[in-house]
Amino acid sequence: MDDGNAILLLSCPDKKGLVARLSNFIFQNNGNIVHADQYTSKRGKFFFMRIEWELNGFGLSREEIPVVFAPLARQYEMKWNLHFTDYIPRMVIFVSQHLHCLHDLILRRHMGELGAQIEAVISNHTEARDLVEQFGIKYFHFPIREKNKDEQESKQLALLRELKIDLVVLARYMQILTAKFIGNYVNKIINIHHSFLPAFAGGNPYQQAYDRGVKIIGATGHYATENLDEGPIIAQDVIKISHRDTIADIQTKSKDLERIVLARALRLHLENKILVYGSKTIVFE
Amino acid sequence: MDDGNAILLLSCPDKKGLVARLSNFIFQNNGNIVHADQYTSKRGKFFFMRIEWELNGFGLSREEIPVVFAPLARQYEMKWNLHFTDYIPRMVIFVSQHLHCLHDLILRRHMGELGAQIEAVISNHTEARDLVEQFGIKYFHFPIREKNKDEQESKQLALLRELKIDLVVLARYMQILTAKFIGNYVNKIINIHHSFLPAFAGGNPYQQAYDRGVKIIGATGHYATENLDEGPIIAQDVIKISHRDTIADIQTKSKDLERIVLARALRLHLENKILVYGSKTIVFE
Amino acid sequence: MDDGNAILLLSCPDKKGLVARLSNFIFQNNGNIVHADQYTSKRGKFFFMRIEWELNGFGLSREEIPVVFAPLARQYEMKWNLHFTDYIPRMVIFVSQHLHCLHDLILRRHMGELGAQIEAVISNHTEARDLVEQFGIKYFHFPIREKNKDEQESKQLALLRELKIDLVVLARYMQILTAKFIGNYVNKIINIHHSFLPAFAGGNPYQQAYDRGVKIIGATGHYATENLDEGPIIAQDVIKISHRDTIADIQTKSKDLERIVLARALRLHLENKILVYGSKTIVFE
Amino acid sequence: MDDGNAILLLSCPDKKGLVARLSNFIFQNNGNIVHADQYTSKRGKFFFMRIEWELNGFGLSREEIPVVFAPLARQYEMKWNLHFTDYIPRMVIFVSQHLHCLHDLILRRHMGELGAQIEAVISNHTEARDLVEQFGIKYFHFPIREKNKDEQESKQLALLRELKIDLVVLARYMQILTAKFIGNYVNKIINIHHSFLPAFAGGNPYQQAYDRGVKIIGATGHYATENLDEGPIIAQDVIKISHRDTIADIQTKSKDLERIVLARALRLHLENKILVYGSKTIVFE
Repeated sequence: MDDGNAILLLSCPDKKGLVARLSNFIFQNNGNIVHADQYTSKRGKFFFMRIEWELNGFGLSREEIPVVFAPLARQYEMKWNLHFTDYIPRMVIFVSQHLHCLHDLILRRHMGELGAQIEAVISNHTEARDLVEQFGIKYFHFPIREKNKDEQESKQLALLRELKIDLVVLARYMQILTAKFIGNYVNKIINIHHSFLPAFAGGNPYQQAYDRGVKIIGATGHYATENLDEGPIIAQDVIKISHRDTIADIQTKSKDLERIVLARALRLHLENKILVYGSKTIVFE
Repeated sequence: MDDGNAILLLSCPDKKGLVARLSNFIFQNNGNIVHADQYTSKRGKFFFMRIEWELNGFGLSREEIPVVFAPLARQYEMKWNLHFTDYIPRMVIFVSQHLHCLHDLILRRHMGELGAQIEAVISNHTEARDLVEQFGIKYFHFPIREKNKDEQESKQLALLRELKIDLVVLARYMQILTAKFIGNYVNKIINIHHSFLPAFAGGNPYQQAYDRGVKIIGATGHYATENLDEGPIIAQDVIKISHRDTIADIQTKSKDLERIVLARALRLHLENKILVYGSKTIVFE
Repeated sequence: MDDGNAILLLSCPDKKGLVARLSNFIFQNNGNIVHADQYTSKRGKFFFMRIEWELNGFGLSREEIPVVFAPLARQYEMKWNLHFTDYIPRMVIFVSQHLHCLHDLILRRHMGELGAQIEAVISNHTEARDLVEQFGIKYFHFPIREKNKDEQESKQLALLRELKIDLVVLARYMQILTAKFIGNYVNKIINIHHSFLPAFAGGNPYQQAYDRGVKIIGATGHYATENLDEGPIIAQDVIKISHRDTIADIQTKSKDLERIVLARALRLHLENKILVYGSKTIVFE
Repeated sequence: MDDGNAILLLSCPDKKGLVARLSNFIFQNNGNIVHADQYTSKRGKFFFMRIEWELNGFGLSREEIPVVFAPLARQYEMKWNLHFTDYIPRMVIFVSQHLHCLHDLILRRHMGELGAQIEAVISNHTEARDLVEQFGIKYFHFPIREKNKDEQESKQLALLRELKIDLVVLARYMQILTAKFIGNYVNKIINIHHSFLPAFAGGNPYQQAYDRGVKIIGATGHYATENLDEGPIIAQDVIKISHRDTIADIQTKSKDLERIVLARALRLHLENKILVYGSKTIVFE
């Protein structure tokens, strides 16, 4: 029977013997490593690792693993997370009026390709409601105005807690989230930006790309931080354009890109392949 | 016998009948059009065209063409240039200490792939001298210091005039050219910038890319303008990087990209496929 | 008011003055050309053109255009088609059990991005029915068995005639169409093949790609011909893979690619930008 | 002082505890792991690993490492190789009349970017001689005719042995090597094929690509095996083409691609990042 795998994501100051200590920890508890990825930053001498091993036959229960691992982690001053591949994360999608990324995620779910459960869609507009509900997903309308913003965000946070949300996806959500909101979901909010960051940060990147006359446009999936477009980048991709492309053409091409880049960033996150280090990501593909 | 082709590059306010008038001009002089590309900007209603026709059998001599065409051009307020495919433009390459683009151009010339004659290489350093001279190309050393800059540039301009230079290539030349210099070669100076502009303009884009943690890096070939990195973009391309890439790795990957993007921009220019419109290019590929 | 544009797609043996004759035809009837693309094959000396002009103010009605144009076309032995940009083509989608491309097209339609009307979905399976009908599109089930194949195809053809279908899209339809079927819709059937043709033609290209150990996989949108995977190619794109990608990973990556390549091929067809020449396409992008 | 690193490349049937055993081997001899990459094939349950550690401070001398490691390797039935990063491999380049890849490698060497020493260039033609010798590299001419082929190959093999060659690069060498030749350098001969294999294997892939009307062309760097174009693929890349590209244009675009793909395949080999498994490669990038 398949009991799933355990995944340990960790980082710490580099020391001799780290790989040996970690692989021994798995081996001595009778685990079978199926993936092991390791990276040492040359600057700063920092060590990053992702180990995945089979739970089937492993000598520790899911509850025991963190208890037994904690002393070793302390000794090396590790920051670490433990995940299990058979846990289905609970996701919420924020969206405004551009719905292509939302649609894409809904269809991936419909095809059984999304490694997460869409618990709800939250929007400051109503365009998405029909399609969302048609697919049996809960839809919540939080209209945002200048003066109700804090209040609405508090309600959203309460809803997210109630729904036990693990991951927030900003699928072209046009509202700035407060530092408080982001502080509640550090490295758990993925945003899709419709440009090749850091080029064309901020508003209307299609127009900016058109005006500058670039020959390639891009899209960027990243963790949201307080300074929205400066968060750690997870995935980027690009597509060629020419002088013949109007802003409408740029938008059409970009939308395909945005859907793919967001899906890719999301998959990497859901497969627990990302470690954040300062303003950058380590992605163990 | 092959007499080569004539190429007319023109732009003017859009009017009905422009294509007909221009193609009639060729036809009535017994010309055979081999390429015709046309573009009308929706904003500004501006018309751009590139027509290429065979000189063999054409009713006007090379000297007569501009004379006969001028009245038609005036009538439609055209900006226009006339080129002949069998003319080999005279090119000078400016370089500092990073020589990969220079080497690439020298080898393309050696393989007979470069549609231009390298008349000289100009450098503020001496690293390039041996290889340049080994291939039988003239090398000129113009060391640049704070206080001799204007004087050296004047000498460079004099040299360029003497060599009857049609095209200046900045193949990783680390000096800022003055407005005066650029004014002498408007849309005739091609620069390679080692980033995906407008991201990472200015100095040390490799470091900037590394620090920002982007997942893709790029290179940009563009016409030099007074604000160097804001000139009209001709060609761009990108390559993926990961967290494992050190700055040295980024440099290695970028250098391949820079060589290809510069060569592509150069080819488009030498094939007379580019029209500049404001800060953008129309590229008839 | 916007009356839409007319588009003429034509090919004929190359002769002097063709561009002039064609642009004069438009101009003399008071038309304004908004796009003109032309290509002359060096081998075979064949001429291809796409001209698009505004109907607003044009001196001929839609019905008169072909009548007036016919003599000119005959004189130059042209093959030609006339299209109007405000006509919405009627499309049918054939699908089997892999539904990602179908879903993608349905969502593009839902977002108003598809320049065609999906009149019906036809399948030899039933998996697609619910979603198709949920979006208000007609679904027809034609189960195919060895001995009923011809009969079912005749019924499909009758249905297509009844629905006045302009374009057939094979969105991962796993049945071979007969020469008779294809003969009814020459260059009007677009197939998506899940490999970079001509590599991995035929069945199970994911497995073939995995077994060969390629580092890049692709997808190909093409017109269906009697020898299915040898039809004229419209669009191709690729994505990198590595030894870590299982067949399931290859499939996941490929599905994104297939959706985009099919959508791109479809868009080029619907914008009347494709001319077929032997087993190849001229695509005026 | 920098003593360089040791790299162990190994493969064996998968067993529990392999990572632990291997990392312990390094740790117990006081080594510091700087890279560790591991892959387990799901089919066949085979284990592959690349470990790189610092020699500085390591408890075993270069000569002792294989002696001490051998018993462990035997126990797990490993196939393994040991490399040192400060060893400069000795390379020979075979070339015929298309010299762009040769030129590229010579320039990379000139720029100090090639992690190998070019000991000699071998050709069945004389075009390359001048440039090769101009850069101070030995050039050997082995004209090949039907009846002297075996004899010439024997002489080439003798020369390679004399030069203590580690790696053979076929930089567009148009002769088929015998099984005997290849048997002497298994997984040590890198060939560049000017197509996206397995499409357009064999002769004249430019023409084949042109005739088929593909929209993308590619290049493939691979280990040479008896069936030349079926060897394990190391690296591939592609570039877009259109109907406007003549065979000469395709060649020009392809040549850039070939240079980059060959250089990339070569770099991966020289950094000891490749394990061959059947007809495929594991590339630890």
